[in-house]
Amino acid sequence: MRELFFLTGNPGKFHEATVIFQDALLDINLQQDPTELVEIQSEYLENVAMYKLRYYVDTLGNRDRSCFAEDAGFFVTGHLNGFPGVYSAYVQKSIGNEAILWLMDGEADRTCHFSACIAFFSAITGEYSTFAGTVEGTVASEQRGTGGFGFDPIFIPDEMPEVTFAELSAEVKSSISHRGRALAQFISFLGENPDVL
Amino acid sequence: MRELFFLTGNPGKFHEATVIFQDALLDINLQQDPTELVEIQSEYLENVAMYKLRYYVDTLGNRDRSCFAEDAGFFVTGHLNGFPGVYSAYVQKSIGNEAILWLMDGEADRTCHFSACIAFFSAITGEYSTFAGTVEGTVASEQRGTGGFGFDPIFIPDEMPEVTFAELSAEVKSSISHRGRALAQFISFLGENPDVL
Repeated sequence: MRELFFLTGNPGKFHEATVIFQDALLDINLQQDPTELVEIQSEYLENVAMYKLRYYVDTLGNRDRSCFAEDAGFFVTGHLNGFPGVYSAYVQKSIGNEAILWLMDGEADRTCHFSACIAFFSAITGEYSTFAGTVEGTVASEQRGTGGFGFDPIFIPDEMPEVTFAELSAEVKSSISHRGRALAQFISFLGENPDVL
Repeated sequence: MRELFFLTGNPGKFHEATVIFQDALLDINLQQDPTELVEIQSEYLENVAMYKLRYYVDTLGNRDRSCFAEDAGFFVTGHLNGFPGVYSAYVQKSIGNEAILWLMDGEADRTCHFSACIAFFSAITGEYSTFAGTVEGTVASEQRGTGGFGFDPIFIPDEMPEVTFAELSAEVKSSISHRGRALAQFISFLGENPDVL
């Protein structure tokens, strides 16, 4: 069975990816490597994910391992110019969902999206590839639901305008989520290019 | 005259440093190098400044140049858990001072500070050093003043509780500011260690 390493310290993200890979019935042994990597400040998820990956492969010298890194963010384009974007994890930890709701108080344009980017390195070909996923939605007027994590309780996906991400099961959320979509693209690529692993 | 490079793309920061170096009467030719550097995501200014510097020296191969990098942030410790901190530049650009005032609306604890960290590399000794500066204050209830930049119009320094940073001349601001204090420490170090340049 071919090995593939997901470079993440987040057990929730790893679990989500494991389930999706199992469902895809690919002959791949997905493993977690929680090595701490360097995250750069950039407005582009792709740059952050790619830098993490190159740091692991080139700087730490893991050219013999096929692996991927991921970065994701919550972008409030209505009223907040894309904030918190690539700094979502920090903003979530420091001021949280209530601060976002307060900043959006009374605002009509509540457009937002989640985006994720996966950067993949093939130890066989030596090449890098990226895969992106996005889900459009609106900022809720209050927190709802207990599932998911982060900004999920204030995100209402356009596909299901009655619920927040935190009110969905993990399976349903993955079927439309930014990360689920990026992983689906990645898995489709792996299926079509069996020689990269 | 000995050469020293300030690694910054910000002409305002370079000008501020030039004035302070001239006042110090050191025999140093301060030059600007605006090469774009990698900024990492970290909660510590020292890590961000040091990574920028090492990227310039080690990754880009400038071991023959004595140089320094700087990073600074605005930390609202009252109510906002240190937000926006090391991500100040991004937060300023995306949501700005009005958003900070809105988040602080009606809050009694308005404690905050500006901090700066300078990381220096000596091409003579091959050693790295860091110098930090902080100024304590409170978040104003509205924007005041037209001087300075960034969060200056909403920062009231404890030393001068009648004004915001944006209401001070550049000279007076530098005498108590985070960056002025970090530069003063750095210059004091250079005066006491003439062999590092």
